[in-house]
Order: sequence, then structure tokens, then C-alpha cells
Amino acid sequence: MSAPTENQRYKADDLTAFAARLLVGAGLAEDISGSVAEALVESELLGHSSHGLTLIRPYATQVEKGLLGNSGRPETVTDRGAVLSIDGNLLPGPWVMQHVIETACQRAPEQGVVSVSVRRSGHIGCQAVYLRRVVERNLAALLVCSVPSSAIVAPYGGTKPLFTTNPIAACWPTDAGPVLFDFSTTITSMRHCRQLYKRGEMLPGPWLLDNQGNPSNDPAVLFGDPPGTLMPVGGVDYGHKGFGLSLLVEMLSSGLAGHGRADAPGGWTTSAFLQVFDPQAFGGIHAFRRETGWLAEVCRAAEAAAWQGPLDSGVHLPGDRALARRAEGLEAGIDLDETTLEDVRDLAAERGVEMPRPID
Amino acid sequence: MSAPTENQRYKADDLTAFAARLLVGAGLAEDISGSVAEALVESELLGHSSHGLTLIRPYATQVEKGLLGNSGRPETVTDRGAVLSIDGNLLPGPWVMQHVIETACQRAPEQGVVSVSVRRSGHIGCQAVYLRRVVERNLAALLVCSVPSSAIVAPYGGTKPLFTTNPIAACWPTDAGPVLFDFSTTITSMRHCRQLYKRGEMLPGPWLLDNQGNPSNDPAVLFGDPPGTLMPVGGVDYGHKGFGLSLLVEMLSSGLAGHGRADAPGGWTTSAFLQVFDPQAFGGIHAFRRETGWLAEVCRAAEAAAWQGPLDSGVHLPGDRALARRAEGLEAGIDLDETTLEDVRDLAAERGVEMPRPID
Repeated sequence: MSAPTENQRYKADDLTAFAARLLVGAGLAEDISGSVAEALVESELLGHSSHGLTLIRPYATQVEKGLLGNSGRPETVTDRGAVLSIDGNLLPGPWVMQHVIETACQRAPEQGVVSVSVRRSGHIGCQAVYLRRVVERNLAALLVCSVPSSAIVAPYGGTKPLFTTNPIAACWPTDAGPVLFDFSTTITSMRHCRQLYKRGEMLPGPWLLDNQGNPSNDPAVLFGDPPGTLMPVGGVDYGHKGFGLSLLVEMLSSGLAGHGRADAPGGWTTSAFLQVFDPQAFGGIHAFRRETGWLAEVCRAAEAAAWQGPLDSGVHLPGDRALARRAEGLEAGIDLDETTLEDVRDLAAERGVEMPRPID
Repeated sequence: MSAPTENQRYKADDLTAFAARLLVGAGLAEDISGSVAEALVESELLGHSSHGLTLIRPYATQVEKGLLGNSGRPETVTDRGAVLSIDGNLLPGPWVMQHVIETACQRAPEQGVVSVSVRRSGHIGCQAVYLRRVVERNLAALLVCSVPSSAIVAPYGGTKPLFTTNPIAACWPTDAGPVLFDFSTTITSMRHCRQLYKRGEMLPGPWLLDNQGNPSNDPAVLFGDPPGTLMPVGGVDYGHKGFGLSLLVEMLSSGLAGHGRADAPGGWTTSAFLQVFDPQAFGGIHAFRRETGWLAEVCRAAEAAAWQGPLDSGVHLPGDRALARRAEGLEAGIDLDETTLEDVRDLAAERGVEMPRPID
């Protein structure tokens, strides 16, 4: 058992250095380790702990098994300036994405829109991490990905899993602060279901299918043999919408990359598609920020609905809470959740790497 | 009362010529009338009768009132080859879109991706109509739009309407036939609710909010004073997803166009954003069609779920039914729904234009 976690907060920089040491210890090149560590800590800062430090172990293990490359750079397959096709060479996803984001942001002011398809990347984790870097440059971005080596979502009306959660992320600047979102095209996530399953709790609705294709609110159906599936957004009544979005993500990622499920790739292979937009190339950045800022202000000032459901206080703009959490984490330290803390403590002990000191 | 409608089918070409005559009669230039008529009949063919011939009257009325331009072409505001910003000059949407689609398709093979933002277009109707023309050229496309002069959807957690149904449409070729979808980022549509309301029927779930922000399955809440709102995709439990998608559509359409709700435009003004992709510029058209075709085949061959909900027979790929309906309509004639038939008969009588002869 681990010690109580109350009041144990860690400086972001200390966690980044710690994660990088563990990854270097697993044989990952220093620059790549730094890139991965930064992405995982950034996920913690944004509150996406499912893609945070808990991933150090799988990253380290995959590098050690040779399933993830440990050095080198992603490969440019085609390059027309505004349109690129990149092969990730099975390097860690955050390293591939750092390269892709940097290239797209540098070119966006000249090209207007830069589109990059990525095949054979390692797992890229939390998409929001990369997009935050785009919005700081007064650019907008769209990022989607799929994992063709995995299948946990059935097409609407079917039973057998075919897709992953195929998330859609986007960010853009506004005169009232950035908008930033990143969500799956399924109703819920494997991680959330696993947590509920451990606690013996049910979902609020029939957001899953059992292995016969019957709608279910019981996360246990995901852990049977064969397992059930996550339902696409819209679920029982209008899951054709989530199914369509999932297909769209497949087309943009694996389709344009020309590598995906048809190739039955092994490992933890990710296909991704990034677009970076410079609003200056369209109606101008001033008009863009004015339009998007006006909407953001109206949303934030909106009178709360009588009903609040899972909300606690009216309208939240996507990203508002994550960015506030990030600012607080940078200031007061990161409060790791219990599972993550156990994970990294165990790993640190196994690997003989010292845990960072919590903030007093 | 109109005559019984059984077995009254019309040739697509006859309906197009008829619609064009009515529009020319309202003062719309001949080339524009032809473009609008073709789009409305194409909507009927694809089964989107909400954007079909029932729109002849509002188009004609808007032209007569001077709210829609009756001649000329959309204006190019900025043009960087792969990135364009277009002002629709309040010309009819199908005419604006014909211009935009043609330009983007012509340039896509050289540019790889062509992105066009459109401001101040007239209502563009059914997005799928335009995309079908793209996929026939072995290109993929994404099209979204919003109507900044209208508001019928509240942000998730709020009560006051701010957005329109902000649809997302996409199409792409595959080795197993095209995929084509077009759906709103709300759960249901005004038209569907109006139909249920007339029949005194309820929705299958709380897909609306009343004017106090209480979830409701009663379409009557949309026709009160003040009216209630359509809920974004995800509804009560996870409407933040539909809200995020709605904001994304606003950003891509009105944001990039630099003209939208902040400008409080009147009339029936539409902002749109189109991207046309040439897969050849990424991983190649062969690999693209193979990946997307593999997925399409697996979906179509999928074993049907035990539960079928609103489906009738397993997995349908988006566009399969609409394209089959279109082929049948071209062959056997178009079966107009009763409301549409009444609309056009009344209009034909008022304007002294002869109705087309039904197929024997």
C-alpha cells in the first residue's frame, strides 16, 4: 500500500525531469525522453491523467521490447509545402507530434492551411497537449487520430468491434481566451468504465453493448470474453452520428495516410491527421478573434439552464476548466491521482530512480 | 385539398425545369435559377425533402423582396491558391456553392487540399448535394455551415438560443462505393419536431429544452413564446460533445470567414467552410481507397446487433440508403411527399406555371 496522498503536490518541472530519467533508463534517446515526459506532464496539468504519468510504464516497456523506436526522427514521405505525409517509424507519439506540430506551425503563416497525415506513429496520448502549443501562436488547429491496431467500438447497428474511440480535438484563439477541446466519438471511455467496474458502479445510461449487441449500462460487459463494446456518440437512439464521425476520423487519419486497419498493424500504432489554420489567410485574424471571442463571451455570460444535469454551474466553454487547472498546477504543483502515484512509485522503486520531492 | 398523391412520380429533369421556371418568374437570373433548381431536385433525390422543392417558395419570395441577389457571381475576397475567402453577396446558396465546389475541385489535384471560407451566402440547403459532385471526381470533402442570422440551439448548460443546427457533411471515395454523410450537431431537427407537433406526438427522449432550460420530449416547447431550443448531440448527459462540435463549426464557418453572429446579420445569411482533399497528395489514392474500402466492406458485412433500435437491418454505411434512393428516383421518378406536393401545386397555380406531368 502506498502512503496517503493528501497534500502531495509535485512541481511540473520535477515530474518532467523524473519521467525523462525513467525513459532514458529504458533506453529512449534523451531528446525523445524529454519530449515524451513533457507531453505526459502536460496531460496531468490539463487534467487528462488517463494520458499522464501512468503511461511512463507502457512507454518504457514498449521501448525495451523494441516495439517503439528509441532514436531518430519521423520520416517525410511526401511534402508539397502545405500538404505533408509523415511516417512515424513507430517512434513515441509525443516525439512524432512535436515534429509535426512544429513543422505545421512554422509553415502556416505562409501557406494559410497546413495539412499533415501521419502513419505508423506510436501512441500520441492526449491530443489537447499539442494543440495548446498551436493556439499560443495565434493559429487554429484540428487534430484527429485512430489506433488501427486496436478495436473497441462497433459500427452502429453491429456487434463486433471495429474502431477505437477516434477522438476529435480542436483549438483556436479568441479575443476572450482560447477554446480547446479533445473528446472521443464514443459516449464514454475504457478508462472511465474500468474505474466504475472496479467500484461496482453502473453508467448513467446504456452507453455500451454487450458481446451480443445488447445495450448495457454495466461496465462489466467490457471485461467479458469476448468483450462488449463502447457505443458511438448518440448511442441507442442516434448512434449513426457518432458512427459517421468515427468513419470521418478513420478517413482523415488512416485513409489519407494510406495505412490502417486494412494492413492489420500490430503494436500500438496510431494514424493521425493535423491541420493548422492561419486565420489571417481567410477573413483576417482580427475578424476571426472578434467572431470567436463574441461567441465565447456570450457562452460564458449565458444564464444557466434550470436543469443542470452533470454540470455544476451553467455554461463552460471547452478548455476553460482544463486551462484553469493547468495554471493552478503550474503555480501550486500537480496533485497526482492515487492510481498514478502508485504506478510511478512502483516504477521508481523497480528502476532505482528517486521520486521527486513533493512540495512542502 | 389536393388530389390523392398515390403513384404520382415525377421525372427529375421535369421537376428541375419546373423549379427553374418558377424561379425565373420570380426574377432570378436563368443560370442561377438552373443551379438552385438542380440543387433542390438533388435534395429530393437524396431523400432530404426538407431541403427540396419545398424551398422554391422561400427562395422566390426572398428574391422578390430583394433579400437575395438575383444576378451576378460570388466575390473572391482573398485567394492564395489553396486558401480562398469568398463573399456570397447574398446570392442564392446553391449558386454560391456551385462556384465554390467547382473552384476547389479544379484546384485540388495541384494543391492537395483546397480550403474555402464563405461568408454572406444565401441559405445553402442540403450539403450532401454538393459533396456528391466532389466524390465523383475521386476527391474527398468536408463541408460545414452555420446560419448567423438564426438561433435555435442553446450552449450546453444554458437556456437562451445561440447556435443553429450547424451541420457537418463529408464524403469520400472508397473501393466499395462512396461514403456520404450530412448531419446536424443537434439531436433532432426543427422540421422533424414540427411534423411531430402537428401529429401530437412526442420525441423518443428529452432532446429539447423548454424556454426555462428544462429537458423535454415535447415538440410543443419549440413553438411557445419564447420558444425552447434543440439540444446539442449528447443531450442531457453529454451535450458538451455536441456543443463542442457546434463551436467548431462556428469557428470554421463564421470565424474563418470573419463574419457571423457578432455582426448580427439579418435575412437568411449562411457562413460555410469547404475543404476538398486529393488523397493523391498524401499517401496516394490507391492506398486511400483501399483503406476506406476495407472499412466500408467490413461495416456492410457486419453481423447485426441483437438490439436494432431505430435500425431495420444491421449496419448501414452513411450514404448507402440516400444513394440507392437517388438511383431509384432517377430511374423510376421522384415521389414527392404530400406537404411538398401541396406547396408546389399551390405555387404553380399562383404563378401560372404548369405543373410537370407525373410519370404514367
